[in-house]
Amino acid sequence: MSTYTAINLVKRPSGSIGPELFEVVEKTVPQLEDGQFLVKQTHMSLDPAMLGWMSPDTKSYIPPVELGDVMRSSGVGKVVESRNPDFAEGDQVMGMFGWQEYALSDGKGVNKVDSNLDPEMVLSVFALPGLTATQGLYGEGDPKPGETLVVSGAAGSVGSIVGQLAKADGLKVIGVVGSDEKADWIVNELGFDGAINYKTDDIGAKLNELAKDGIDLYFENTGGPIQHRVFERMNAHGRIVVCGMISDYTAKQPSAGPNWMNIIRKRLTIKGFTMPDHRHKTPQLLEKITPYVQKGQIKYRSHILEGLESAMTGLNLFFTGENKGKLIVKL
Amino acid sequence: MSTYTAINLVKRPSGSIGPELFEVVEKTVPQLEDGQFLVKQTHMSLDPAMLGWMSPDTKSYIPPVELGDVMRSSGVGKVVESRNPDFAEGDQVMGMFGWQEYALSDGKGVNKVDSNLDPEMVLSVFALPGLTATQGLYGEGDPKPGETLVVSGAAGSVGSIVGQLAKADGLKVIGVVGSDEKADWIVNELGFDGAINYKTDDIGAKLNELAKDGIDLYFENTGGPIQHRVFERMNAHGRIVVCGMISDYTAKQPSAGPNWMNIIRKRLTIKGFTMPDHRHKTPQLLEKITPYVQKGQIKYRSHILEGLESAMTGLNLFFTGENKGKLIVKL
Repeated sequence: MSTYTAINLVKRPSGSIGPELFEVVEKTVPQLEDGQFLVKQTHMSLDPAMLGWMSPDTKSYIPPVELGDVMRSSGVGKVVESRNPDFAEGDQVMGMFGWQEYALSDGKGVNKVDSNLDPEMVLSVFALPGLTATQGLYGEGDPKPGETLVVSGAAGSVGSIVGQLAKADGLKVIGVVGSDEKADWIVNELGFDGAINYKTDDIGAKLNELAKDGIDLYFENTGGPIQHRVFERMNAHGRIVVCGMISDYTAKQPSAGPNWMNIIRKRLTIKGFTMPDHRHKTPQLLEKITPYVQKGQIKYRSHILEGLESAMTGLNLFFTGENKGKLIVKL
Repeated sequence: MSTYTAINLVKRPSGSIGPELFEVVEKTVPQLEDGQFLVKQTHMSLDPAMLGWMSPDTKSYIPPVELGDVMRSSGVGKVVESRNPDFAEGDQVMGMFGWQEYALSDGKGVNKVDSNLDPEMVLSVFALPGLTATQGLYGEGDPKPGETLVVSGAAGSVGSIVGQLAKADGLKVIGVVGSDEKADWIVNELGFDGAINYKTDDIGAKLNELAKDGIDLYFENTGGPIQHRVFERMNAHGRIVVCGMISDYTAKQPSAGPNWMNIIRKRLTIKGFTMPDHRHKTPQLLEKITPYVQKGQIKYRSHILEGLESAMTGLNLFFTGENKGKLIVKL
């Protein structure tokens, strides 16, 4: 019997995230029952949301990964054996396959993907990042042409798509990033109107310069000091979409939020969202984003890690901000 | 020529609010032109919103009262002379008459009120407090029967109406107040399900006891430590309506808000609002609240101050929490 490699979560994170939280195991490739099929995963997505899935404190979100279970993740693969009439050998599929080389499925939550589509593009645009950007911007943010949008984590997988969608819709788009290289990429490659390097720029002064008319829409992916500087500059009736707080995910002491007085003075609306609530809208979200992709308005770049075990250290790149583009593990 | 007394704002508040900010002046009762009428004010409303009107930092809200101008306020009075066909001598009217015994009007923004209605009831229920409560609860908060609502400033003019409306709609209602007397009033007179005295109770422990199933809707009138304790206990898809932050109005150092991580985890919506944005909805808001009043579901109590000049010290009662009920100056 042939075996394959899987990685289980065996410890909850407290501070850093690395190989000490995981266990690499060998498993036996299972026999198929009727209705099942076997997927050989080719590309595995690493997403900031996974940091939440590893923490115990998520009772009102989706259940955390149980200790001893395969680490949860989405990925793309090929069907290599099937006893399910809807999935044939050779089909390219997308689903929550986890950190493992092979995954057994009954088809639930698995979608077929055109075999001509590059798996990197699937995971970078049509999977969680694109769905999240689309739901967050249109489902929560109510963007209007002519408005000014600021997005943090702007070179990240979600932020880069949010900014490009908004730019295509006629908003002024300012991105906050953590390196000059990323600033250059979002302005010169993606067409953002401006970029702020939060590590080196005076954030407030730069916002004053780039967002002269104030900020109508803030798409929050990171938290940190940016949050306060943007909050102070929100326009009346502004909206804030809270999608991620990467800077606080593993913080022992959560950072203080802004005082609420401005929520009244500016009549702000602040909305948090997570994608599991909107999974049923996947077809509509894909329908919304597809024309932008077809018109070439959504560029992406992926940061490829090689081999299953690279995932264990790869997650840390979200904290250091060293990833350039969508993090994907190639198996 | 006869004269009357008016009070002008002559200084911006910084910390406390008292007679040092105002100037009492004598004015000549003006001659009417065509289309004008003269109102003798009988009752004047003191509202927390006035603290905002006195501050210079309200550029995105409504304009502040100019220094040297009569202090802004709403009130009820009788038409004593009229050259306006829509307003007759003897009519009872409501409007923004300011801190003065007489007000000249062309009818703009002035509404006739049934002469049988007690002016105290008009100012306590059908004026700013009732309109604010109705817009905040229904226009922003989306209350649902069976949900748990917490309201701060629960014995205040807005909070007490919010709680009674929600209670009539089948929500569980918990009020936060600053004295045992107020706690007793909201539970035993208004029918709230529970009360917390934020000055003497362990707020967190008491919330755990009273809101066993968590909190779905928080109506924020005060800010302060209550905000954090409630925020931590919000349920998934909870809503927070931010109406007032009395504890921060004159603070030199604004208090820290809660960390935003829970906004994502719980998918919260936080909305600020102010009534000038909704002035055009006054007829609909009155239509909404009237049936509750007619069914006897809205009780109120007014705290009457005697004489125009009592307004200058009266505003401080909002900070000390010593007012019992809607603050009204009787002229």
